[in-house]
Amino acid sequence: MEEKKLKELLNSLTWEEKIGQLVQLSGDFFHADELAVGPQKKLGIDQKIVDQVGSVLNVTGADKTKEIQERYLKKSRHKIPLLFMADIIYGYRTIFPIPLGLGATWNPELIELAYQQTAEESKAAGAHVTFAPMVDLVRDARWGRCLESTGEDPVLNSAFARAMVTGLQKDLLNGGGIAACVKHFAAYGAAEGGREYNTVDMSERRLRQDYLPSYKAAVDAGCQLVMTSFNTYDGMPVTGNKFLLEDILRKEWGFDGVIISDYAAIQELIAHGVAVNDREAAKLAIEATTDIDMKTPCYAKELEPLIEAGEISADLVDRSVYRVLKLKNDLGLFEDPYRGASSEQEEQVFLTEEKRRLAKKVSSESMVLLQNKHDILPLKPNKEKVLLVGPYGDNQELIGLWAVHGKREDVVTIKKGFENYLDSEHLLYTQGCDMLEDYTFLGEFGATKDQIEQIGLNDQTKEQELTNALALAKQADTIVFALGEHTMQSGEAGSRTEITLPKIQQEFLQKLTVWNKKTVLIVISGRPLVLTKEVEQVDAIIQAWFPGTEGGNALADIIFGQTNTTGRLSMSFPYSVGQLPIYYSEFKTGRPLTSTTHKGRFVSKYLDSPNDPLFSFGYGLSYSQVDYSGLTLSSKKMEETLEVSVKVKNSSERTTVETVQLYVQDVTGSVVRPVKELKAFKKVELTAGEEKEVVFTVTREDLKFYTKEMVFKAEAGEFIVFVGANVKETQEQSFELV
Amino acid sequence: MEEKKLKELLNSLTWEEKIGQLVQLSGDFFHADELAVGPQKKLGIDQKIVDQVGSVLNVTGADKTKEIQERYLKKSRHKIPLLFMADIIYGYRTIFPIPLGLGATWNPELIELAYQQTAEESKAAGAHVTFAPMVDLVRDARWGRCLESTGEDPVLNSAFARAMVTGLQKDLLNGGGIAACVKHFAAYGAAEGGREYNTVDMSERRLRQDYLPSYKAAVDAGCQLVMTSFNTYDGMPVTGNKFLLEDILRKEWGFDGVIISDYAAIQELIAHGVAVNDREAAKLAIEATTDIDMKTPCYAKELEPLIEAGEISADLVDRSVYRVLKLKNDLGLFEDPYRGASSEQEEQVFLTEEKRRLAKKVSSESMVLLQNKHDILPLKPNKEKVLLVGPYGDNQELIGLWAVHGKREDVVTIKKGFENYLDSEHLLYTQGCDMLEDYTFLGEFGATKDQIEQIGLNDQTKEQELTNALALAKQADTIVFALGEHTMQSGEAGSRTEITLPKIQQEFLQKLTVWNKKTVLIVISGRPLVLTKEVEQVDAIIQAWFPGTEGGNALADIIFGQTNTTGRLSMSFPYSVGQLPIYYSEFKTGRPLTSTTHKGRFVSKYLDSPNDPLFSFGYGLSYSQVDYSGLTLSSKKMEETLEVSVKVKNSSERTTVETVQLYVQDVTGSVVRPVKELKAFKKVELTAGEEKEVVFTVTREDLKFYTKEMVFKAEAGEFIVFVGANVKETQEQSFELV
Repeated sequence: MEEKKLKELLNSLTWEEKIGQLVQLSGDFFHADELAVGPQKKLGIDQKIVDQVGSVLNVTGADKTKEIQERYLKKSRHKIPLLFMADIIYGYRTIFPIPLGLGATWNPELIELAYQQTAEESKAAGAHVTFAPMVDLVRDARWGRCLESTGEDPVLNSAFARAMVTGLQKDLLNGGGIAACVKHFAAYGAAEGGREYNTVDMSERRLRQDYLPSYKAAVDAGCQLVMTSFNTYDGMPVTGNKFLLEDILRKEWGFDGVIISDYAAIQELIAHGVAVNDREAAKLAIEATTDIDMKTPCYAKELEPLIEAGEISADLVDRSVYRVLKLKNDLGLFEDPYRGASSEQEEQVFLTEEKRRLAKKVSSESMVLLQNKHDILPLKPNKEKVLLVGPYGDNQELIGLWAVHGKREDVVTIKKGFENYLDSEHLLYTQGCDMLEDYTFLGEFGATKDQIEQIGLNDQTKEQELTNALALAKQADTIVFALGEHTMQSGEAGSRTEITLPKIQQEFLQKLTVWNKKTVLIVISGRPLVLTKEVEQVDAIIQAWFPGTEGGNALADIIFGQTNTTGRLSMSFPYSVGQLPIYYSEFKTGRPLTSTTHKGRFVSKYLDSPNDPLFSFGYGLSYSQVDYSGLTLSSKKMEETLEVSVKVKNSSERTTVETVQLYVQDVTGSVVRPVKELKAFKKVELTAGEEKEVVFTVTREDLKFYTKEMVFKAEAGEFIVFVGANVKETQEQSFELV
Repeated sequence: MEEKKLKELLNSLTWEEKIGQLVQLSGDFFHADELAVGPQKKLGIDQKIVDQVGSVLNVTGADKTKEIQERYLKKSRHKIPLLFMADIIYGYRTIFPIPLGLGATWNPELIELAYQQTAEESKAAGAHVTFAPMVDLVRDARWGRCLESTGEDPVLNSAFARAMVTGLQKDLLNGGGIAACVKHFAAYGAAEGGREYNTVDMSERRLRQDYLPSYKAAVDAGCQLVMTSFNTYDGMPVTGNKFLLEDILRKEWGFDGVIISDYAAIQELIAHGVAVNDREAAKLAIEATTDIDMKTPCYAKELEPLIEAGEISADLVDRSVYRVLKLKNDLGLFEDPYRGASSEQEEQVFLTEEKRRLAKKVSSESMVLLQNKHDILPLKPNKEKVLLVGPYGDNQELIGLWAVHGKREDVVTIKKGFENYLDSEHLLYTQGCDMLEDYTFLGEFGATKDQIEQIGLNDQTKEQELTNALALAKQADTIVFALGEHTMQSGEAGSRTEITLPKIQQEFLQKLTVWNKKTVLIVISGRPLVLTKEVEQVDAIIQAWFPGTEGGNALADIIFGQTNTTGRLSMSFPYSVGQLPIYYSEFKTGRPLTSTTHKGRFVSKYLDSPNDPLFSFGYGLSYSQVDYSGLTLSSKKMEETLEVSVKVKNSSERTTVETVQLYVQDVTGSVVRPVKELKAFKKVELTAGEEKEVVFTVTREDLKFYTKEMVFKAEAGEFIVFVGANVKETQEQSFELV
């Protein structure tokens, strides 16, 4: 439809019809199952409103969406189709690793492909918009939604933000892909104490320097929608925050797409204490240019009275409605309200061999080898007895909490993966240990006490499992532990004050590491866990995140050496929860621990812990040895660009992919600058014995930051460039920006 | 000296002489012992500079200061006396409890007296200025300097700030008291991760609302000096931060006293990365109006060249010099450069009976009874066998890290205190347990490995002590454990990631709580410790802080019922380090845990921990039962003031002092407001059975805050007033501000 006609359509709508476009309800209002993703309460919304509503939350499936669309359009005076929006965060039916694992691939090109395939599945299933990518910066592993982010670094997160939006929206205006909705704008990851939905407080400097760039990257990549975050910024919840939404997002960044509130966030302005009632809440939100009200009656009931009372301008609402209509039009929904959704298409595109292959590749690249004492990994197939134990050993819960459209039965378990390499003589398996000592918290999703009691192993089985495990352990040469968090211990509202393995699993590990067996620990988790004890207990550790549908195959490929390990952490793994928040790009202090001039007590440190995390940003081992040498700068003085080259040599017998990382320190600035900041990285394939020269071009743009006067620019002076395999192991050279 | 003459004096000085006034060096430059309170390094300062230096750091003692002053004045062309400044934080010779304990008294009037007595001792010892009060807001118990603060609340901290300044400076301009130097301006307590000297980042809103009021209270009380803090604010270390020092402190608040840098902080602008060299560091600091350079050569070497080069104005330096001269003049040093310092005076005023009595009273009032199961406390003297054990049982280290002029030998140990109540038949004692399992970290102060090995119990004694303790425990009816942190585990640069009792003490406690004895735990610490396990293990817990010279007597008085327990926490005691930072005045979230509308998973909480601390702000038991009733407001509508009254009744047989606390919630604001804010408190004595009505007047001033537009004012609307014994146990009523 042409713009002119779209405007005519807008003008032909009644207020009721217009405002309907700004309301999103969940499936239960459309006789579909509801996926509960927020507080459940009676909304007081009647059928009249439902008939005008512009979009639907978390209903997917070709048949279901088509049926709802058809029924809806029949009643609709203007035949404006419904938008179907859904939480499709890291895969629709083919589930990739959780985003924190995707971050560890350091491979945005690959992730773009993954999201393109996700979009293909989603589109077939009738989804028009996904609430992805989630690009919140995460520096506190207590927060459960670390799972959904690609990590702690603005540059890396921005690269993934671009890749995900590009992948999802491929050919969007020609009927391809689905629309992306970047979230949660902004700074949601900085919840105090890592506690979900808690206050966020930071300077505008930190906001702009660290937290905003990844949202900006998504917007610049053409992201169609933006979701507001639950948190406050400068005392105002973002859903009513004009400074963030109107001043920065709309005016500075020129974003004219749809802003949607997070689940119930408009009405929650009341609980936050910035609105007395629904009416004030609606006013704050619409004035901040929040277009769609997700799952509250505020807009539906209050916008029209607000206009009538002259408290908000009609134009303000019109602009929001137009943005929603434009999105529908851009997606081609007026021409084809089903937009290619069909059950035949679903069958053709869901979980194809190609998709499984890609999922396995992504999964492999996401895994991080944290430790490999005596090079015990990789194992040789069928040369020794391998015991696989632990609650994740033969478990299809490898897809994590927020793979809401994925199916457990599609998942290749770790045991299944191992069976590709080991015959029954060499593969021993028993679960050995329950997932948790206590499942009470599962009651949060409405499970009854009786139901909860049925979860997990019963006492007798528990004992039997341990006995089995101990007996098998004695026979085995290598023990592989598949341990980790329960799915429900991470994700939204999955904040924890202790971020270790569950106690029952720790005790199990302890009991089974008493002999001199080779030991491998696979960690399944939605966040960096504290592994300080485990580092001492086992030989090898693989951080496998929630690795997705093909997780078991990917892990087996790595453990048996079919694939080299190339994953690198995108988030620091702390020694202890007492170090949090922690991030590599910390600011210089006046009394740095590393300084030679500052000895003794009075330096910036803890008495009982290193400052550095247990495993640093950028860290990850491979089965190859890669040596760095000859860091060279094209000049000691830089004007607009500088070439930085380094030689990397694979001195092993095995092909690998090395992630060469370039960091910069701005030695003196008009404000205090970080000790190191990632500026560039390259993945370089190196065959056995191969040496390559890797060349980076550092630009003036890379050196820009918010100066004392809040101007984004580079300041002349000394810089240090660091290149290496991770943030801690680098070579360095200094140069002067003139 | 008249102002006119002082200005003439200023004008008669050479630049070298002027700048000397802006330099402070430590005792080693004056042939006195150096107290190391910062990084040790060669300064490159020669005798010529030393001869002009205007003030001396941490040299005290009448004879020593007089000798230095005399020698200095002989060489001085203009006979401008030296200023002697020192760290006198919570007592000079008579040591009071650490300030976190003082905060727990909720008794600013008493603390004013204590600081007045401290000033008397300090003055006799030749000190002119003390680097107190420290009023940094503290909400993260990992930070070692919690010890020096009165707690987490702006209103309570402000009350103490006023009291301490008033006490120290009593009759200052008539030759009494000593000058106070409030520190550390500003927001030092918010170091990220609780790690000493680490970055501080917060919004200006939070800064003004929570962090600045206590400094402002000190300045308004006439505090003569302000010390800059080590941390950054908005990217700039405070020592070079014009916004904080010039715009807020000098211009907004009208402070025209002396600003002194913290130890070496000017030169540390280089390590911070905001200055390239000493010269730039000096320029930043003087331009921010930092008057005195403590312990670096920056001002001494660079100010004159900076003036000559026209990079700073001569007037800027002149103003700083004048402020220093004015301080000396106000203190009467031109008339009497010794200002009453004399060894006879020392003898007369040090540690008098009156001072010991006051110290005991303060110490008693600082102690907080955290738990008293089955009312096992108080104990009846000589009615049962009491075993006292633990590394603090007969230990004179009760004065804490920063009582630098106190003497251990003055300290009444807990055992000594117990002997006032128990004869030798009823008092059993053995140390039982070493302080720490590992003393390596003491090497920070220069102890050699050999010296460190001599610290603590040797292996044989350790075993013998445990055997003794176990044997005595069997005989005893009640076991009193005197456990806690090592002195060096808190204070400056005493950050810890685990804030439990030392492991060796935990194990000891475990071993001695196996029988069914009555058990009392005395906790000696410089911060809130995590006592979650101990709460289950023992019957009674007394938080005794570092209780000072009279700590043993105060504790005995409480344990044997001579004194009731009236202390109330001024800082939250967390369940675990994973809850940090934690504070009662947290902001409202959109999904509060307490709301009846928000059930299930999606509320602001942890999966594995309560949101509330183990022991809340304002909490503390007494030996009496005090009941609250009849909360009444003078009106449901408030214009300028509101009277709030409540009845408190002591239904016990014992006189007590109840700290009645009044909190307010601003239900809806233009920005998100805290769930509760302390606005007033009253200490009320109640004899056995007595009931009193306590009346508060809430004023419009109390309800002011920084609105969305950063205007400090009260907004009309609904408020809730809460009155009770602590922040969690309150009665409430709502009213409307019109």
